[in-house]
Amino acid sequence: MKFTKIAVAVVAVMLTFAVAASAAEQKVRWKLAMTWGPTLSPFTDAVEEMAALVEEMSNGNFVIRIDASNKHKAPFGVLDMVKLGQYDMAHSASYYWKGKDINLLPFTTMPFGMTAPEQYAWFYEGGGLELMQKAYEPFGVLSFPGGNTGNQMGGWFRKEIKSLDDLKGLKMRIPGFAGEVLAKLGLAVTNIAPGELYTSLERGTIDALEWVGPGMDIKMGFHKIAPYYYTGWHEPATELQFLVNKKNFEKLTPHNQAILKAAMKLASYDMYIKNYDMSADAWSKIETEYPNIKIMTFPEPVMDAMKKANDELLADYAKDKPLLKEVLDSQAAYLKKVRKWTEMSDYRYLKDNVK
Amino acid sequence: MKFTKIAVAVVAVMLTFAVAASAAEQKVRWKLAMTWGPTLSPFTDAVEEMAALVEEMSNGNFVIRIDASNKHKAPFGVLDMVKLGQYDMAHSASYYWKGKDINLLPFTTMPFGMTAPEQYAWFYEGGGLELMQKAYEPFGVLSFPGGNTGNQMGGWFRKEIKSLDDLKGLKMRIPGFAGEVLAKLGLAVTNIAPGELYTSLERGTIDALEWVGPGMDIKMGFHKIAPYYYTGWHEPATELQFLVNKKNFEKLTPHNQAILKAAMKLASYDMYIKNYDMSADAWSKIETEYPNIKIMTFPEPVMDAMKKANDELLADYAKDKPLLKEVLDSQAAYLKKVRKWTEMSDYRYLKDNVK
Repeated sequence: MKFTKIAVAVVAVMLTFAVAASAAEQKVRWKLAMTWGPTLSPFTDAVEEMAALVEEMSNGNFVIRIDASNKHKAPFGVLDMVKLGQYDMAHSASYYWKGKDINLLPFTTMPFGMTAPEQYAWFYEGGGLELMQKAYEPFGVLSFPGGNTGNQMGGWFRKEIKSLDDLKGLKMRIPGFAGEVLAKLGLAVTNIAPGELYTSLERGTIDALEWVGPGMDIKMGFHKIAPYYYTGWHEPATELQFLVNKKNFEKLTPHNQAILKAAMKLASYDMYIKNYDMSADAWSKIETEYPNIKIMTFPEPVMDAMKKANDELLADYAKDKPLLKEVLDSQAAYLKKVRKWTEMSDYRYLKDNVK
Repeated sequence: MKFTKIAVAVVAVMLTFAVAASAAEQKVRWKLAMTWGPTLSPFTDAVEEMAALVEEMSNGNFVIRIDASNKHKAPFGVLDMVKLGQYDMAHSASYYWKGKDINLLPFTTMPFGMTAPEQYAWFYEGGGLELMQKAYEPFGVLSFPGGNTGNQMGGWFRKEIKSLDDLKGLKMRIPGFAGEVLAKLGLAVTNIAPGELYTSLERGTIDALEWVGPGMDIKMGFHKIAPYYYTGWHEPATELQFLVNKKNFEKLTPHNQAILKAAMKLASYDMYIKNYDMSADAWSKIETEYPNIKIMTFPEPVMDAMKKANDELLADYAKDKPLLKEVLDSQAAYLKKVRKWTEMSDYRYLKDNVK
């Protein structure tokens, strides 16, 4: 055997190993845009946990850079940026896109709708996730649950709401279907990026707002200007969403796809639990540290009017919108089934143990 | 340069690549023992999902074989087998080991204790997981949440329980702290492996038993011999556990450790949601398909006696047991804080919406 032949054979074998080694080490670098600013815990925690899990589990081969809204300057532009491939992923709330595509509204939460475990059961066992993928299909985007806030508080008001008349004409920040309900009751409803909420309330651009719950709200300082804090009816289980560019997802290896999906799902559940803890913690301090906050419940006639407006809107809303109708019907049927079990288990148990 | 020198250099380079490639492809093969038989859904689903996630995310390099109790023949021997390294992992319920080490009792659920989201918040945000690791330290075992059943039903009885006297002398399968409570009230309390429950009830080895909830119970057929189905008080959030041999865990690469931990945590949350759906589904069929099942609630004097016995036992139980005391105190303090928020959020919301 000649030296050159041996050398050629050896180089060929080396190349094979080199290719194998480099394939194993091939780096994936992704970018994610958040609707939120950089420190909006626990929303940002869900994103950071997801990215950290992906990096650790892929042995550093799959790294996701996170851009907050102060970087990309488009809190409500993240769906478009993922659609266009400017970002590989985003983290936002599906009901923010109701003006863009009404089919995307119901995947965050619905007034008088499911609680967090009920809604997770609908997503993962009741066909909800498949319907969400169908709704995002026209955008070339995959969508996954992105973290739940649990039951939200009904919002901060400057004045006590004693009757429906006190609500009429009020300018309020409230997104999603609850915004439609309150608009029907005569409020001027708007959505505002999280980073501008406090200033908008302070300057009177809005008279009232709902944000999340005690864990997140009190840090925002709303209680200083609008001390009436109402219990919730409108967002019983607000689920955020991860949005993923479908073509870019399909370019990932199967194990990176599995890693990404597991990391998103785990970080979402964890956010629900983290916010439960944050809310419990903040709530326990309200009496002692924030005595000026006035905890209120909407009077019964107001609640009844909200329920009535909600039922009427639901009955009317999905006319000529077959996919929206399919989603709303699916949610209603699942809620009807699952709530009976909730009432027999956790609700009855809590009732037996109320101090 | 001589031919031999070149050859040596080339071989050295080849070996480097070969080692790198083989390290990337190194296979890890683990074995897991379940307390359960092979088809006990959703307990077995949690284990199968965990193993599938590990295999997919590791690109097939980390594979976990699952042995059910019909294979290893020791449903209540799995902790010992993991301790001794005969199995790398197990899936069971921590309160089954109360006779072996009382410190392991409180990590599954406690009567009149936390609900599932409350307890997950305690595990992951309230120091519970760290306390569980401390309790398993003497066994050389790591322990992680392994799936929650949600709020359990109080069990199946042949006869109606009208008073405390009807409970006295009853032979009942009920594990954990609830078993201690009922023993104090005069029941003969025992634990029985899941695979032998039906036969034990049929043959009169026991007069009554609690198992899980409608999703799992009805498939077991208990209603055919004990039609009185009582609502729950004793296991508001039963969390199973993954047990992992600590030395074997430490031999894993950091990314395989991350993969295993994420897979266990995700499969656990998923089991909670899956069982929620299964219970809702089974519950919705009770009226129509199982009209002979009699849904009952324990009379108030019986419930009061259970609460009193529970409080007395709790006050007394941890004397001279510093770690058990630390765990029980931690749970009580967290419950006190978190329940206030649960009552203000999900409980009040459900109450407003009860039909």
